[in-house]
Amino acid sequence: MEKEKLIIQIKKWLEEAAVYIRKNIRAEIEVTEKSGRTDLVTNMDEEIQGFLIDKIQKNYPKDRILGEEKGYSSIDSFTGRVWIIDPIDGTMNFVMEKENFCIMIGIYVDGKGELGFIYDVMNHQCYWGGVDLGVHCNDRLLESPKMKSLSDGLMGMNAFMFGKNIHHAKEIGETSRGIRVTGCAGLELIAMLKGNHIGYLSNLYPWDYAAGIVLLNEFGFFYSNVSGEPLKFSGREYFLAATPVAYQEITSQYFNL
Amino acid sequence: MEKEKLIIQIKKWLEEAAVYIRKNIRAEIEVTEKSGRTDLVTNMDEEIQGFLIDKIQKNYPKDRILGEEKGYSSIDSFTGRVWIIDPIDGTMNFVMEKENFCIMIGIYVDGKGELGFIYDVMNHQCYWGGVDLGVHCNDRLLESPKMKSLSDGLMGMNAFMFGKNIHHAKEIGETSRGIRVTGCAGLELIAMLKGNHIGYLSNLYPWDYAAGIVLLNEFGFFYSNVSGEPLKFSGREYFLAATPVAYQEITSQYFNL
Repeated sequence: MEKEKLIIQIKKWLEEAAVYIRKNIRAEIEVTEKSGRTDLVTNMDEEIQGFLIDKIQKNYPKDRILGEEKGYSSIDSFTGRVWIIDPIDGTMNFVMEKENFCIMIGIYVDGKGELGFIYDVMNHQCYWGGVDLGVHCNDRLLESPKMKSLSDGLMGMNAFMFGKNIHHAKEIGETSRGIRVTGCAGLELIAMLKGNHIGYLSNLYPWDYAAGIVLLNEFGFFYSNVSGEPLKFSGREYFLAATPVAYQEITSQYFNL
Repeated sequence: MEKEKLIIQIKKWLEEAAVYIRKNIRAEIEVTEKSGRTDLVTNMDEEIQGFLIDKIQKNYPKDRILGEEKGYSSIDSFTGRVWIIDPIDGTMNFVMEKENFCIMIGIYVDGKGELGFIYDVMNHQCYWGGVDLGVHCNDRLLESPKMKSLSDGLMGMNAFMFGKNIHHAKEIGETSRGIRVTGCAGLELIAMLKGNHIGYLSNLYPWDYAAGIVLLNEFGFFYSNVSGEPLKFSGREYFLAATPVAYQEITSQYFNL
């Protein structure tokens, strides 16, 4: 009951945030470079994170928060309930395309993923689910996708890693039926949940994968860093998620695990 | 009046084809490899091309047809009216994703582009237009996009060219704000028309670009092969389309033109 209430509440907050973004997406946006010219933040990222943090702190003052922007990007403990937030995942797309970005929230309890939400804002599609809940798109329960091998599916890919063949990304891509580059971790993880892609190789922060891996779990996808170790939820890390068979192929043939 | 009637007719045929595809997309699809494991054709590509050719031949028996599949892939003359058809652009996406593919039709008269149609089937969006008609998405006239420079925009890219740095594709991508790979020429050209991307570099057949360049023309985008020459409309060719400023930057800095 507690969980059900929480889900309804989070969906409501996400909907409010999405409505606000859609309403203001054509307005002037303040864009600032963070680490460089391809790493952007806007006033909208900060507003949406502020909106969500405000809701969480008012309703659940004891919960901890890990979020992409401004002073929330690290956390000292994963004890108790932790909210992991990406207010706008795919900020470059948000700025350049005004579409193809997501709001993401992962809920962890004592370090264990409980709930995940990936909201594709401009397509009005909220993917959500959690432990023993399955994966839903809005009100529809998704079927488990076919778990295809690497050579039988498309692979979501970080373009930089592909271009430089980092951790054999190019070879992995060439073994697949083709790579796709969306510039948005949330959309790549949605593509796996729908069965469109068999995997995703990238370099991610915790807020890029926290929500998604809770959902991947429900379908039995595998994921880890490129050493085959559990993700650290701290700083940026190379990230692989794939169908069990493709994960096994990639880690044994390309990562020597 | 003649042109208006033609537009209405083509939109009707496209709508019929799209409805048919959407209705049958979950059915068993017969997939055959053409030149290799990443170059597919399905019974749906052939059915849709057959459907369109049938309509054209019944209504306009004197017109010529150039199309991707089965015996229509070359043409001896561009005199008179020529229909250039891609029944399913993005066949790999059609097979793997069941979305992110287009039907495309370009209408040329004595070698000159007159009308273009790119129908994003699963999004129910038909981009169309032509000489002095502007560019529309369904019933909405599009505004001309901002013509940004290479370093200020996203670039649609062929993944193979990027990976192998063919014609400096990797360097061009690295100068942009980022590459995107959709696996569908129609979607890349739509991304330019919407102002999402500043350019597209790929290796294309005439049916991949025929419709799109008619629409690009209306907004003043530039396009050519990588020698700066007009596209040949025969066989496969390296293809660049970009905003005037990005085209100038790419051709002078990377193609030495």
